[in-house]
Amino acid sequence: MNEFELIAKLTRSLPGNSTVVTGAGDDCAVLDLGLSDRYLLLKTDAVVEGVHFVSTAAPEKIGHKALARCLSDIAAMAGRPQAALITLALPKTFDPEFIQRIYDGVNALALRHGVAIVGGETTTNPECILISVSLLGDVPKNKCILRSGAKSGDAIFVTGELGGSIAGKHLDFEPRLPQALWLTDNFAIHSMIDLSDGLANDLRHILKASHVGAELLSKSIPISRAARSQAKAGSPGKTPLLAALGDGEDFELLFTLASKDAVSLLDRWKMQFPDLRLGCIGKITSAPGLKLRDETGVHSLESHGYIHFA
Amino acid sequence: MNEFELIAKLTRSLPGNSTVVTGAGDDCAVLDLGLSDRYLLLKTDAVVEGVHFVSTAAPEKIGHKALARCLSDIAAMAGRPQAALITLALPKTFDPEFIQRIYDGVNALALRHGVAIVGGETTTNPECILISVSLLGDVPKNKCILRSGAKSGDAIFVTGELGGSIAGKHLDFEPRLPQALWLTDNFAIHSMIDLSDGLANDLRHILKASHVGAELLSKSIPISRAARSQAKAGSPGKTPLLAALGDGEDFELLFTLASKDAVSLLDRWKMQFPDLRLGCIGKITSAPGLKLRDETGVHSLESHGYIHFA
Repeated sequence: MNEFELIAKLTRSLPGNSTVVTGAGDDCAVLDLGLSDRYLLLKTDAVVEGVHFVSTAAPEKIGHKALARCLSDIAAMAGRPQAALITLALPKTFDPEFIQRIYDGVNALALRHGVAIVGGETTTNPECILISVSLLGDVPKNKCILRSGAKSGDAIFVTGELGGSIAGKHLDFEPRLPQALWLTDNFAIHSMIDLSDGLANDLRHILKASHVGAELLSKSIPISRAARSQAKAGSPGKTPLLAALGDGEDFELLFTLASKDAVSLLDRWKMQFPDLRLGCIGKITSAPGLKLRDETGVHSLESHGYIHFA
Repeated sequence: MNEFELIAKLTRSLPGNSTVVTGAGDDCAVLDLGLSDRYLLLKTDAVVEGVHFVSTAAPEKIGHKALARCLSDIAAMAGRPQAALITLALPKTFDPEFIQRIYDGVNALALRHGVAIVGGETTTNPECILISVSLLGDVPKNKCILRSGAKSGDAIFVTGELGGSIAGKHLDFEPRLPQALWLTDNFAIHSMIDLSDGLANDLRHILKASHVGAELLSKSIPISRAARSQAKAGSPGKTPLLAALGDGEDFELLFTLASKDAVSLLDRWKMQFPDLRLGCIGKITSAPGLKLRDETGVHSLESHGYIHFA
């Protein structure tokens, strides 16, 4: 049983109550605690030394990443982050200055996005550093964007450039919070997710939740400079395109909206966020499955085994 | 620098915002997200294999404890728990059945207290199991009990019997949620905390937050059977009384209220909770410090070095 099978089994029988709008399975849990106009968003996420960062990483960047991952999930619901708790699990031989520098990274990011750090704890973890962040946010009820709203005919958009995040971006990306708010303030976004598992895998989450398929246009996938450099230096099998489709931790926004709004979105985006690329990379289809169109035809991503690159 | 010094340093400069009523330093963070009658409560807590449970503990009890610790903190604010997220950090060689049984323990407790489990994650932790729980609750604005409300002359009460929790109670205690709600529904509770660090240490948290002192009556400290058994079997220096004062993880409620209400409280408690002991163990004083009165006189707990037993 792998991680996804285990999670599927566990989440089938979780206790609920009347506050739950959307439980496990989206970027955040969505709760109705009685606010007339807003839902609450609840998210937790952990980073572990040796898995999400190496022991030689700058502690400020480790702290930044721990909070930024949660903020990116709030962005994926078009929410506002409000308050966070920080759990540090550390070997007993911790260096107080190192911990202070982790908090410096957390605090600087929190200040930029108006997030209060309202507590947490330190505990012991024998072999490595683990940082778990809990985040509470809110979102207007009529602007909360789920993974499940994609419709056949929607245009698929992605911010930024993809792949090769391991070269550095995974530690110092800026969560796309203002972009997500602007999108829902100005357009009827149908579905949204942040890219953590890789474009192909995260798009599959939208497709599954929305009961639709998608066709991506190979030439339109925005490939990062880091992905190109790594492809030159690395094994010949992993092309820059495959890196952009499969590499994790891009932390960009992937979203869909009605294709009639696509041109207007691209025009207004350029005015609003001139320094951040936005690309239309394909369309949602009623036929299930994830397909890639290139100069040689239309290929099923699954049937080419691209899933194994993620 | 020890854990407490580090936390004090870190919490001096945490980012805040307008939602924060009480940040780091009480049992839960208290937030005002705009509900007219209620505050939100936010708490996170982690249990680690080898620290909070041994590897041979029943997985249902490990899950129970992970959630129960957070519920106990919500009880200490007289709040209602609403929704929880569960983070499991596991060695790669995890046994799916073991994880399922951890969730069985979490879910059974959640169902009893009406808590929704709305997500979480599994991640890798090289050497041991770590479970981090995030909990969102709420509390009527006029019934949220902080550590900082104790007043000179207050009677000090504690539920249950103390000490020796390591014999088993630390894994299967029931959070005192209904008791806390009943207390604030029927009496003007001034301050409250749940016992995790031991009676003497947790009372000191109240004293420090409230800028008062306390005098405990030695004969009134409720000593558990487990504490007595362990004292017989263990080293002669650790008496049952010291175990009740110093042992951690009792997860009972410690609270204060005006002494004029003490008799009425004891009478009505016996009717309401006949199976759970409630004891008046001393009084709050304007003079700072924590003192213990026994047949030989009044002793400063600090000056006897009892702090080292905690």
